[in-house]
Amino acid sequence: MDILLSLDRRARQPLRDQLYDALRAAILAGEVPPGAKLPSTRAIAAQVGVARFTAEDSYARLVADGYAVGRHGAGTFVAPLAAPPSAAPDDASPPSGPDAGSGRSTPTASATTPRPGPHRPWSAWGRRVADGAAPPVATESPPFAFRHGTPALDAFPHALWRRLQTRAAREAPPAELAYGPAHGLPALREAIAAYLARARGLRCGPDQIVVTAGTQQAIDLLARLWLDPGDAVAVENPGYPSVRRVLAAAGAALRPVPVDGDGLRVDLLDDLAPGAKLVHVTPSHQYPTGAVLPLARRLTLLAWARRRGALVVEDDYDGEFRYGGHAVPALAGLDAAAVPGAAPGPNAGPLSAGDLGRTDAAPSAVGSVVYVGSFSKVLYPGLRLGYAVLPPDLVAPFAAAKALTDRQAPAHAQRVLAAFIAEGHFERHLARMRRLYAARRAALLAGLDAHLAGVAARDPAATAAGLHILVRFDVPYDERALVARATRAGVGLDAAGACFAAPPAAPAVLLGYAPLPEDRIDEGLRRLAGALRHP
Amino acid sequence: MDILLSLDRRARQPLRDQLYDALRAAILAGEVPPGAKLPSTRAIAAQVGVARFTAEDSYARLVADGYAVGRHGAGTFVAPLAAPPSAAPDDASPPSGPDAGSGRSTPTASATTPRPGPHRPWSAWGRRVADGAAPPVATESPPFAFRHGTPALDAFPHALWRRLQTRAAREAPPAELAYGPAHGLPALREAIAAYLARARGLRCGPDQIVVTAGTQQAIDLLARLWLDPGDAVAVENPGYPSVRRVLAAAGAALRPVPVDGDGLRVDLLDDLAPGAKLVHVTPSHQYPTGAVLPLARRLTLLAWARRRGALVVEDDYDGEFRYGGHAVPALAGLDAAAVPGAAPGPNAGPLSAGDLGRTDAAPSAVGSVVYVGSFSKVLYPGLRLGYAVLPPDLVAPFAAAKALTDRQAPAHAQRVLAAFIAEGHFERHLARMRRLYAARRAALLAGLDAHLAGVAARDPAATAAGLHILVRFDVPYDERALVARATRAGVGLDAAGACFAAPPAAPAVLLGYAPLPEDRIDEGLRRLAGALRHP
Repeated sequence: MDILLSLDRRARQPLRDQLYDALRAAILAGEVPPGAKLPSTRAIAAQVGVARFTAEDSYARLVADGYAVGRHGAGTFVAPLAAPPSAAPDDASPPSGPDAGSGRSTPTASATTPRPGPHRPWSAWGRRVADGAAPPVATESPPFAFRHGTPALDAFPHALWRRLQTRAAREAPPAELAYGPAHGLPALREAIAAYLARARGLRCGPDQIVVTAGTQQAIDLLARLWLDPGDAVAVENPGYPSVRRVLAAAGAALRPVPVDGDGLRVDLLDDLAPGAKLVHVTPSHQYPTGAVLPLARRLTLLAWARRRGALVVEDDYDGEFRYGGHAVPALAGLDAAAVPGAAPGPNAGPLSAGDLGRTDAAPSAVGSVVYVGSFSKVLYPGLRLGYAVLPPDLVAPFAAAKALTDRQAPAHAQRVLAAFIAEGHFERHLARMRRLYAARRAALLAGLDAHLAGVAARDPAATAAGLHILVRFDVPYDERALVARATRAGVGLDAAGACFAAPPAAPAVLLGYAPLPEDRIDEGLRRLAGALRHP
Repeated sequence: MDILLSLDRRARQPLRDQLYDALRAAILAGEVPPGAKLPSTRAIAAQVGVARFTAEDSYARLVADGYAVGRHGAGTFVAPLAAPPSAAPDDASPPSGPDAGSGRSTPTASATTPRPGPHRPWSAWGRRVADGAAPPVATESPPFAFRHGTPALDAFPHALWRRLQTRAAREAPPAELAYGPAHGLPALREAIAAYLARARGLRCGPDQIVVTAGTQQAIDLLARLWLDPGDAVAVENPGYPSVRRVLAAAGAALRPVPVDGDGLRVDLLDDLAPGAKLVHVTPSHQYPTGAVLPLARRLTLLAWARRRGALVVEDDYDGEFRYGGHAVPALAGLDAAAVPGAAPGPNAGPLSAGDLGRTDAAPSAVGSVVYVGSFSKVLYPGLRLGYAVLPPDLVAPFAAAKALTDRQAPAHAQRVLAAFIAEGHFERHLARMRRLYAARRAALLAGLDAHLAGVAARDPAATAAGLHILVRFDVPYDERALVARATRAGVGLDAAGACFAAPPAAPAVLLGYAPLPEDRIDEGLRRLAGALRHP
């Protein structure tokens, strides 16, 4: 038995490990067949030029790991192992696929062959995900990046947050490091419930809240619990692309319903989305137009959902940022307040505010609205914490889905956030950010007027809220060319085309103003204007 | 128009808010119909006994929020709103369900009516999740709790971890707080790849690693990408209940394959799990028996998976804890090494260790094994970080699924963990824990012999590894009664019945020794023996 081996004396890997690896590979590759006798340790040591004890070490490990067996006095033999696996599966295509019977599927069979990786029998979900793969996160950072959905990370109270992190790590009982409730840390759920009552007029019990890894996960869990392939789902048009992707991956039949200056055209639901089992809506600040859904439409939407047994997902992705006027009450709050048996009916006798207090705290079990909120925009996206407020009968299935999917949100971050909210830091931070963003928004509007009048028109629906403005450009080239020109001038723009069911005639962009100081906003828009003017 | 209202003067809520709430509820409940004139502010102030400006405040907010409209000089009128939603959906059952045509579904129609919450049109996945809802996490803590799957949380280096947390928070560039790569932080993926090469003999590039929220999420994502309802899946019997639940929720047809003293009976796969698209296996330390899958079976399993185009999920949930002997090489490592084109074939000319080094670093694109690892057992479960090592062509779809599901793992915890591994703390901690757990394991075995000989028999497959031992009890009552007796004596036991496809004849328990010091292990077993003896 002659094995050709050579070791690399300059490599950092010890020679005994190199020898072990080389012999193991030769065995696995079938070069030394099962039952064959290996060279004596003396012979192999001489062959590759190592000390004999080095070879003995390598052989001992081969035996210990099961690649070889030592027979006393007779030497070391290759273990009786299975034949080395062959690379090509003999029946890789699932028999039920469209390619059944045609043998190996061809590269052109794109319906069953997902893009990355050949000959893999993906699930239907897997094929949909691979087909609609999310665009990569922007990593380049031009000096004037009008990123939407990103808060002012430099204005985040880092020192305070670090202090709370350290304290939370010190104070957390050891049991909190073990597996905890899938619903989330009780202290955090209580802090969120109290905040929602104070700030959003949404009264719910902490037991209606499940902590998630952001709204993305909340919506994914709802899609899994609620939607079968083929189920109709109403989405806003234009609307939030990430949500559309989740719903499309679930196999839902998306029914885009237009949005006007008052948000979702609720009156068109029956015509455009008959039988929809779920409606995704952004009533506080429509994504991307910025419209606010008026109370009358909210009530109509609730009545429609009740009648249909449909679920309304109220996505309040940045509803905390409103720079003037009252916030319209959350759909989820109206849902709870309007449930008969919860709010007393016309013949229920004298109405007292005390009754109402009880009412709101114990809404009926047949609510139609799931409110999803996020800390990504208010604190920072990398935190990965959000929550869902659910009608009572949906809580247990939702938490079971969360447990099955990833058990629970991380314990430490939940404790830090609970303290941040409960001790008032959250609302102080929010108040500061509102002032900051209101000023940046004003700078953006002034800059658009000063530098881009006649070229860039902001969506008329935009209200004084949120972290971005939808802007349409009157230019003789498309969105991609617009973004490329801007990038060359050092200006980062987020294209908005993906928000629309059909590409808009004029290139549209989401101008995020939160991460840029006023002077950079003005300078960025000045540069953008220059970049668009010159051919 | 007479509205009956009463306010609660002892409540903490300001009177103006109480009045607003009461009027709003009356409007929503339809007590004051659309178009009706509200009482004058003077009248209502007198009626409920508040100052007139308080009533004016409440009315102004009703107008601002859209519940009422003010007509100059004429008074305040209820806004033209939709009729109050009615609670009962008129067509809540999906038309395709078995109850179609029979009107309202009855409480006995359990196939379409999920357990929690009536009349909800759950998805098929939702019904499976609601049916197989995970048992609640144990919250009671008897003084002698032999919890499996929980490390020694009191031996965790809390102070060091806090220091790294503080440093990570200080050092993280602001961009890291924004959305990052779905794959995970590059620094963490590099640290994991280097650790796997050093400690587990698994050589992979950092670009084959995707960071997840623990192995639970990794397996859920694989199930979604790979399995359609009805697909056959081979699982170990006995095996890991949480994984079985995830696979069952995906609609997979579970094929339990027996386990013996050498782990999964790979030879029975063709008979018992023909056409299985996925095999879940715990080769380092079979869950729950503790068997180690020998090299020969590993190679047979790989060859089988290749032949079938099946995916092998190598679940290394606690493989770091081995208290003697060499670890058998990871399946994922064998998979990469055995791929033709990666390892040179018999006619590939002289074999050099240098070739092998290149080989392992760039495995072929047709691997069959996904290795999933977790930091829950090595650090702490509440951290919620784990990872998958994927064949190269599976990385992009898996990361796309992760992005769709919850975007990415939290940034801060990833940075802390990356530093913990890269700076050597992880392997030092592991070494300390191995010594600690080896001693605790010895105490458990000694205690079983001393106190429970003839009553409790440990599984013969158990190797010196892991954090628990599977023990069968020869007692004249069932598992539930056994656990109840133990609990009354202050001893916490984790029943193992759920690990088995069919309930075992003798009650079985997972005795976790990691969280208890030796003296408490001995005392706990002594008490357990007493509790079992007395009727």
